[in-house]
Amino acid sequence: MGKKMNLLIFSGDYDKVMAGLILANAARDMDVEVTLFFAFWGLLVLRDPERLTNEGKTLHEKMMSWMTPKGPEELPLSHMNFSGLGKQMMTDMIEEHEAPKLIHYLKGARKKDVRFCACKLSVEIMGFKPEEFIPEVEIMDAQAYLGDALQSDMQLFI
Amino acid sequence: MGKKMNLLIFSGDYDKVMAGLILANAARDMDVEVTLFFAFWGLLVLRDPERLTNEGKTLHEKMMSWMTPKGPEELPLSHMNFSGLGKQMMTDMIEEHEAPKLIHYLKGARKKDVRFCACKLSVEIMGFKPEEFIPEVEIMDAQAYLGDALQSDMQLFI
Amino acid sequence: MGKKMNLLIFSGDYDKVMAGLILANAARDMDVEVTLFFAFWGLLVLRDPERLTNEGKTLHEKMMSWMTPKGPEELPLSHMNFSGLGKQMMTDMIEEHEAPKLIHYLKGARKKDVRFCACKLSVEIMGFKPEEFIPEVEIMDAQAYLGDALQSDMQLFI
Repeated sequence: MGKKMNLLIFSGDYDKVMAGLILANAARDMDVEVTLFFAFWGLLVLRDPERLTNEGKTLHEKMMSWMTPKGPEELPLSHMNFSGLGKQMMTDMIEEHEAPKLIHYLKGARKKDVRFCACKLSVEIMGFKPEEFIPEVEIMDAQAYLGDALQSDMQLFI
Repeated sequence: MGKKMNLLIFSGDYDKVMAGLILANAARDMDVEVTLFFAFWGLLVLRDPERLTNEGKTLHEKMMSWMTPKGPEELPLSHMNFSGLGKQMMTDMIEEHEAPKLIHYLKGARKKDVRFCACKLSVEIMGFKPEEFIPEVEIMDAQAYLGDALQSDMQLFI
Repeated sequence: MGKKMNLLIFSGDYDKVMAGLILANAARDMDVEVTLFFAFWGLLVLRDPERLTNEGKTLHEKMMSWMTPKGPEELPLSHMNFSGLGKQMMTDMIEEHEAPKLIHYLKGARKKDVRFCACKLSVEIMGFKPEEFIPEVEIMDAQAYLGDALQSDMQLFI
């Protein structure tokens, strides 16, 4: 009883992030406690497209913000992205099956009390601002992540 | 006693899948129970090249079938694939060492009673037909995967 | 008490390896026992640029040595590498924050008694020589890895 799952979302690929969020939703439906720790490219999932800002950013930080996808639905596929064509085909196929898209799994996870954490060091290096993220995000360091992960019944690096 | 390993094979890269299957074989040789859960690109490992069919598929599903590797040995490398040249070099090097190829590790895992599962949602979205897979594959949803993984002594996302 | 972490480093991407080494350092600072098992592209982290040799290598092995990054700082990014431009930007951003680079996390892990292991089969297939690696590396087979991983409180595939 009281199972716990911890996922480290490193990837910024649409399909990999979707796998992580599907697991997070399914686990919550089974009453499993879920922590998602987003690092490096995974942070792109947490940026709210309506909250992006360049205020107080260095030139590199502005470039990073400009070159990276704006919000979860903009993420590329890990395989067969073909400059977005493969991605388009995949999301068309998802719609044909009336299956949820990434953004819906993200909304589901937020409603179901999944814990959202962002890696402190990654946020600093990539120059994102905490106010660009969805509001429930906690900024967390590697030791706090390890504390949570080591107490969990399963951990994945995605 | 009675150790258990669960691997989620998300990747469709030759080298990553090979790593997963090497671990599955080694674990069975140590009497560890093994479940492999194939999702998204991982499903490409399960398609038997002699059982591929386009019957009853939509246009998108036919395209997916046409654009993806036909069987395990056709998978690309995750790094340095170079449109297949790097892959060729890697498999040549494997042969020079008289080491097994991916297909041999797959055969080994099948003989050694590894449990093969395919993610239900991925199968539907990518439009593969269960009859295209090797026969022992069980179609399984995310909750059944989590039930197995949470009971295991180790879990990896590959 | 006496927690233990096992990371399988399969990737040869700068950012992914950095994530693994950051976790290894943070875990040691919390007195967690750490084993790193490097397989396939992960072996590129272990090659000491000052110890590379072509002695006794086959043509394929020489090509592999020639085509792969010489040492940890030469590894590419997993996303947005852009033939090295994105990588340069990322390392510039790391320097602007006076944050450690990959090589520093590697040095830290070596000082903090992280256990470094190299996958025997990968070493053979890729044709690296044990004397090219940093000296503390143990050559280890898949079963020995599994023995360690199954005893650990957490395992990740990176």
